[in-house]
Amino acid sequence: MADAERKLNNGKSRIDFQADPSKYRHWKLTVGGDVATLLMDVDEKGTLFEGYELKLNSYDLGVDIELADAIERLRFEHPQVKVILLRSGKPRVFCAGANIRMLAGASHAHKVNFCKFTNETRNGIEDASEASGLFTICVINGTAAGGGYELALAADHIMLIDDGSSTVSLPELPLLAVLPGTGGLTRVTDKRKVRRDRADVFCTTEEGIKGKRAVDWRLVDEVVPASKLEEAVAKRAREFAAKSQRPAGAKGIALKPLTRERAADGVEYGTVSVELRAAALASEASGQRGHSKSARAGHSPEPGSSARARLATITLRGPQAPPPASAEAMVEQGAEFWPLKLARELDDAILDIRANEFDVAAIVFKSSGDPAQVLAYDRFLDANKEHWLAREIRGFWKRVLKRVDLTSRSLVALVEPGSCFAGTLAELVFASDRSYMLIGKRDGDNKPPATLALATVNFGAYPMSNGLSRLASRFLADPTDLDRAKAAAGETLDAEAAERLGLVTFALDDIDWEDEIRVFLEERASFSADGLTGLEANLRFGGPETMESKIFARLTAWQNWIFQRPNAVGEEGALKRYGTGQKPAFDTRRV
Amino acid sequence: MADAERKLNNGKSRIDFQADPSKYRHWKLTVGGDVATLLMDVDEKGTLFEGYELKLNSYDLGVDIELADAIERLRFEHPQVKVILLRSGKPRVFCAGANIRMLAGASHAHKVNFCKFTNETRNGIEDASEASGLFTICVINGTAAGGGYELALAADHIMLIDDGSSTVSLPELPLLAVLPGTGGLTRVTDKRKVRRDRADVFCTTEEGIKGKRAVDWRLVDEVVPASKLEEAVAKRAREFAAKSQRPAGAKGIALKPLTRERAADGVEYGTVSVELRAAALASEASGQRGHSKSARAGHSPEPGSSARARLATITLRGPQAPPPASAEAMVEQGAEFWPLKLARELDDAILDIRANEFDVAAIVFKSSGDPAQVLAYDRFLDANKEHWLAREIRGFWKRVLKRVDLTSRSLVALVEPGSCFAGTLAELVFASDRSYMLIGKRDGDNKPPATLALATVNFGAYPMSNGLSRLASRFLADPTDLDRAKAAAGETLDAEAAERLGLVTFALDDIDWEDEIRVFLEERASFSADGLTGLEANLRFGGPETMESKIFARLTAWQNWIFQRPNAVGEEGALKRYGTGQKPAFDTRRV
Repeated sequence: MADAERKLNNGKSRIDFQADPSKYRHWKLTVGGDVATLLMDVDEKGTLFEGYELKLNSYDLGVDIELADAIERLRFEHPQVKVILLRSGKPRVFCAGANIRMLAGASHAHKVNFCKFTNETRNGIEDASEASGLFTICVINGTAAGGGYELALAADHIMLIDDGSSTVSLPELPLLAVLPGTGGLTRVTDKRKVRRDRADVFCTTEEGIKGKRAVDWRLVDEVVPASKLEEAVAKRAREFAAKSQRPAGAKGIALKPLTRERAADGVEYGTVSVELRAAALASEASGQRGHSKSARAGHSPEPGSSARARLATITLRGPQAPPPASAEAMVEQGAEFWPLKLARELDDAILDIRANEFDVAAIVFKSSGDPAQVLAYDRFLDANKEHWLAREIRGFWKRVLKRVDLTSRSLVALVEPGSCFAGTLAELVFASDRSYMLIGKRDGDNKPPATLALATVNFGAYPMSNGLSRLASRFLADPTDLDRAKAAAGETLDAEAAERLGLVTFALDDIDWEDEIRVFLEERASFSADGLTGLEANLRFGGPETMESKIFARLTAWQNWIFQRPNAVGEEGALKRYGTGQKPAFDTRRV
Repeated sequence: MADAERKLNNGKSRIDFQADPSKYRHWKLTVGGDVATLLMDVDEKGTLFEGYELKLNSYDLGVDIELADAIERLRFEHPQVKVILLRSGKPRVFCAGANIRMLAGASHAHKVNFCKFTNETRNGIEDASEASGLFTICVINGTAAGGGYELALAADHIMLIDDGSSTVSLPELPLLAVLPGTGGLTRVTDKRKVRRDRADVFCTTEEGIKGKRAVDWRLVDEVVPASKLEEAVAKRAREFAAKSQRPAGAKGIALKPLTRERAADGVEYGTVSVELRAAALASEASGQRGHSKSARAGHSPEPGSSARARLATITLRGPQAPPPASAEAMVEQGAEFWPLKLARELDDAILDIRANEFDVAAIVFKSSGDPAQVLAYDRFLDANKEHWLAREIRGFWKRVLKRVDLTSRSLVALVEPGSCFAGTLAELVFASDRSYMLIGKRDGDNKPPATLALATVNFGAYPMSNGLSRLASRFLADPTDLDRAKAAAGETLDAEAAERLGLVTFALDDIDWEDEIRVFLEERASFSADGLTGLEANLRFGGPETMESKIFARLTAWQNWIFQRPNAVGEEGALKRYGTGQKPAFDTRRV
């Protein structure tokens, strides 16, 4: 069955998104001056799950986790690097794409998550180019098939060896009855701008395209004879390096391993806590219902139907100390610098929930700390925005927040007394599907009333994948709403002011708070998980689309659909029959 | 099983997309001066399929076919009408949306096609407003739930009666575990521009929203007390009529019934022939393989796997006579005017294949006639573009061509000797996934060599749903390609010239032609039907997205996915259990 989850390799119980270059099994990262070489040399035995081998530089999520890690390390640890040469360490093959046996045995949920993460990694490669001037040149020395070519598509420049046999191809449809799901189709039409009928020929030609036609059809940027390859690569590297503004003399910071303590009901990081609990426990315990607004709806979630559903509460802690005195002091703090530490921990927490906690229906964001300190860090980063590390940290936050936007869990922000949703942290309120803010103090609680504060960062520093800031996406109807929010930047907004400005969904007083939130979360856990995924994927991205949002919406949604169809995953489907010698049997009905 | 197709009512064997106002069962169309009232009063017994009743103004495809017909008739038969009042003929209910029992019993393919057609109808209402100044005011006198509210969303102005109980709602997710699939979510965020967290509350609140909150949240434009409703409606109608440029004194033309003769292997219309045949017959008969370009691919479609797959060849016939002498003469010809007759017949042919011929893998477009005459009609319509009927005909072609773009069958154009792919008809070549053009004459054939000719219409008159012309979508990479095509407008292009300009995929000589086309079509029929649907849905729409393309891509793709998920369509899913008294059982895993 396509839904039987494979067993993780080496007795692991969770997929871990942290990696360490000294322990990479699939990539060799070497840095020489301003050029780094990232050599893909996949260890066949180094699989994430049991039951397959990673032949021909094919990959699984484990390979991609190392790749994503390498790109981040080049940004933070090697700020002087201007060009990445993405190459294969295997002869006659660049990369055979996602491992087919892995896909055939993976659950639907894993396939979808795998595609999402690999897409985020490819977008990260493009973001490194666009935002940091860290360019990627892909050197294809053999077959680049499927996900292998999709990886190449993420590069700024694709070089193909002209040896009469090396090809690029997207053979997913003819071979496997699925789509190139890691952005391939969208990058072919929207980035490479391949003519649509040629794209049709390309994507239905199993053996791929090579040589001059590959250039004429815009599939690669150049073909180079083997004898001249190294010379040509060096030349291109010099050209791209000359265009980069990355700091020549800068010394990087070490992305030290995260500190994580895992318990049965959550994880403790330095600045982030994750707490997991059953979604319906509170209601079963209290037995109360019916006097809150939501309960009026007459919708009665049956505890039984959501028995397995859980909630993950992510609490973000504000800084313990004021920002450092200078950019140099920030570099000195390195991975301990609060905004970077928090972003890395939040990123890991989100990825962990996505890949390991499928029963989590909703992620509840809370925060604790001094909003003034949070804003002080935002001002510090604003003041140092020309410094490479400040820029990388802002860029990292941008990517983490995009990851949040694309997380298929209901996202809820609870703005409570003692919280610090200000500036950068306020983005989590705007990334949420709903937000609730408590009016005034809690009875018998000394914590200061909840506040929300906007800063410059909320108006452009962190665009969503649709190209708009979260506030601009929120206020599509009336630009004056955005103007009003801008005018309130710097102010300390109480719950009623925040609600009036449209920054939170509901402001509630202490009397309503507990029941209202409880009933809402129970209701959320009672809905169809798939329905919510589709609903949120639509409501979160109003307005324009970009290549990136098209990849995650148009292409991914079609791929999710196809990943369920019997022609792909049925017992007689192409994914199941691949390599068995038996032809797949297809339902020929067009839908 | 969700895939067991329901039986059509009244012993019909095909879904028929032609309707006649004198036989409407569900709508009452009355025209008074420049205001028409379109009253929805669904006949419970008048279902398309057996096994359900259309209670509470709920609808099935049959109801929507009449609605689409009514909108077209208002455009062509009543050019003086400026405002449509969309109302319910039932007390206390506007429309309960798509019939749930119909959905629960429909095949996946029918659900997807149903949503596609209803979306096209809603877009048609919006197009009437935008392109013709035929505005729609929706008057909601009771419940407008799900598809009922989605219908309202298509209007220019939504009025909700303020009676303390009338609501608008999108209860699909909480009730049925599916999405509002007729553009609802996209129109809420992108047309009504409802704030995303409010949209979240709205779409998860089964009982809907009414009164002042419905206005504050932009869900409706105004609420009106019952006592003042008629007065307010009349006032709004006058306001919208004042903004319309529709011709006050014009007399419409009758959209006479199409002439269709159906045989076992196709349909004959006046200007269109549809021929159906098995996809693999030719190959089985000839037994030839292997010396064409495609055969080199090594991909050997197994005849068995595509045994049911068929091809539909649609041949479009050029005009028999030159265009009329004047606009008045065109009005005189009415529905017999060649461009209108052809468009109506093509539209019917496409809809018939979509809904009744699921095993058709590819639609092959051919044409026959004199290209000079086709261009003469294009020039005639250009010259009369200010005339209301010329404008409506061009608009109708635009919608038919969009329907072609959105048809989930492989689209192939064969440009052969004797064909007339010029101007408007050339759009079918550019709408196709691939096009082949024969070089020179055929051996022993007197027909003139194939030509292709561009005209002004090819550069903007027929935008795709992404807002670009088909040629602009084709030449995304290099605007000078589009300039070159423009410069060639008016020329008679032979196959090699057309290929050089990038207007066809391949130009082939007579020696290669037959095998090449045969192998290609067989290969196409051998691929996974679902995979092709997803592939083509992505490759056809490079570049920008619009609200319309978002509806068909983002929203529809997610809905297709959800329409397969057990939480919706499984034996314990919400669609199946709706109305049984049993709660659905959900898989709580988020994907």
